[in-house]
Amino acid sequence: MRIDIITVLPELLKSPFEASILKRAIEAELVEIHFHNLRDYTTDNYKSIDDTQFGGGAGMVMMVEPIDKCISALKTERHYDEVIYMTPDGETLKQGIANQLSLKENIIILCGHYKGVDQRVRDHFITREISIGDYVLSGGELGAAVLCDAVIRLIPGVLGNETSALTDSFQDGLLAPPIYTKPRDYKGWKVPELLFGGNFPKIEKWREEQAYLRTKERRPDLLDD
Amino acid sequence: MRIDIITVLPELLKSPFEASILKRAIEAELVEIHFHNLRDYTTDNYKSIDDTQFGGGAGMVMMVEPIDKCISALKTERHYDEVIYMTPDGETLKQGIANQLSLKENIIILCGHYKGVDQRVRDHFITREISIGDYVLSGGELGAAVLCDAVIRLIPGVLGNETSALTDSFQDGLLAPPIYTKPRDYKGWKVPELLFGGNFPKIEKWREEQAYLRTKERRPDLLDD
Repeated sequence: MRIDIITVLPELLKSPFEASILKRAIEAELVEIHFHNLRDYTTDNYKSIDDTQFGGGAGMVMMVEPIDKCISALKTERHYDEVIYMTPDGETLKQGIANQLSLKENIIILCGHYKGVDQRVRDHFITREISIGDYVLSGGELGAAVLCDAVIRLIPGVLGNETSALTDSFQDGLLAPPIYTKPRDYKGWKVPELLFGGNFPKIEKWREEQAYLRTKERRPDLLDD
Repeated sequence: MRIDIITVLPELLKSPFEASILKRAIEAELVEIHFHNLRDYTTDNYKSIDDTQFGGGAGMVMMVEPIDKCISALKTERHYDEVIYMTPDGETLKQGIANQLSLKENIIILCGHYKGVDQRVRDHFITREISIGDYVLSGGELGAAVLCDAVIRLIPGVLGNETSALTDSFQDGLLAPPIYTKPRDYKGWKVPELLFGGNFPKIEKWREEQAYLRTKERRPDLLDD
C-alpha cells in the first residue's frame, strides 16, 4: 500500500511515522508513506498557498492551484483509489472505513489547514471526505496521522500477533472487556478469581458478558446498529 | 494550563507539539506540556511496563504499578482537575468536551498502548475516559495529541484571530459553509457571484443557508440535537 500525504506542515507529521507500529510497517515495506509539501507546488515568489476568503470573514483559505498541481503530478505517475480530504464536515471515520481502506493500493490524503480548502478543490479533486470526529483541530495533519494509523495496523503482517486486532473494540460491534495482568493483588485491589482457574470456556463466557455489559452501559448505540 | 502526558512513546508525540499552533501556544506560555516516560517509573531491571493477560489472550496489558507511581508523584506536586485515559471505549470526544477542558488548570493524560491498561488503573486512578472516535489506534498517543490540539486552540490568545474558532464547524451545531479564495475563475470553475458584491447581509444569509443545507445533507443527526 502507498499513501501520499499532501500538507503545508510535513514536519508536524514526522514523529508519529517514526515510532512504534507505523515505523515497523514502513521498515518492513508493508506500506510506503510519501509527504508532499504544498509549498513546492506554488507559482509565486512568496510560495503562497492560501489567501483571504471571498465575501469576507476570519481565517485563510487554501488555494486551488497548488493543490491541483500536486494532485495532478501524482496522478500522472499512478492510479489512485481515493483522494481523501481530512475535514470536520466529512464522513465520520469508523472502524469499517478503516477496514475498507486497508484493502486499497494507492491513496492520497490532503490535509486542510487554516479555515480549509477552496470549495472547488472539494468539487473537482476529492473522492472522499473524512472526519476523525465531531471536533475541530488546527489542521488535517493529526487527522491524517490517525487515519494512517487506523488503516496501516490492519494490513496483514503489521501487528505482531495476527489475532490481536480482531479482539479490539468495535471489530465485533462490542467494546472490549476488562483486562488484567500481574500482580494478582495490588494494594488490596484484586484480579477477578475466575481468570486464574484455566477454565477457558468459562473465561470466554465471562469476557463476552463483560463486553456486552460495558457496551450496554457506555455505548448502547452500538447495540442498535 | 498545564498538561502532563504519560506515555511509553514520548518520541512519537514530539513533532505535533513542535509545529504550528501547539508550538506557538507553548512558546507564548499559554500552555505547558510535560511528557513522562512510563519506563522511568518501573521497578525491575528490564523496565517492564506490561505483561501478559490473566486468563489468556493476545496482546500485552500495561501494569498498574508504574502508572500508580507516575500519577501519584505528579499528584504530590499539584492538584489535577482530571486524570484522563485515552481509550476507544471512553466517552466520545465532541467539541463541547474540548470547550469544557479548555477551562481547566491541570490535566493528566494517560496514553494506553498494546491492549490497554490493567482494569485497576481505570477503577482507581482515572477520572475520565475519552475516545477520539469509533476506531482503534495502535496507542493512545495520537489520541492525546488530538485532544491537546482540540483543547489548546480554544485557550484565549492561542489562535491569531479570536473570531476564527467561533466560525468553525460544530461551534454553532452546524457544519461550516463552502469557502472560496482567489482566483475568481480557475479553469472555468467559478466562485459564486454573490460573494463579490460586498453585500454582507446577503452573504451572511447565503452562508447560513449553505451551512444548514450542508448539515442537513451530511449530518442530519446534528440538527436533531
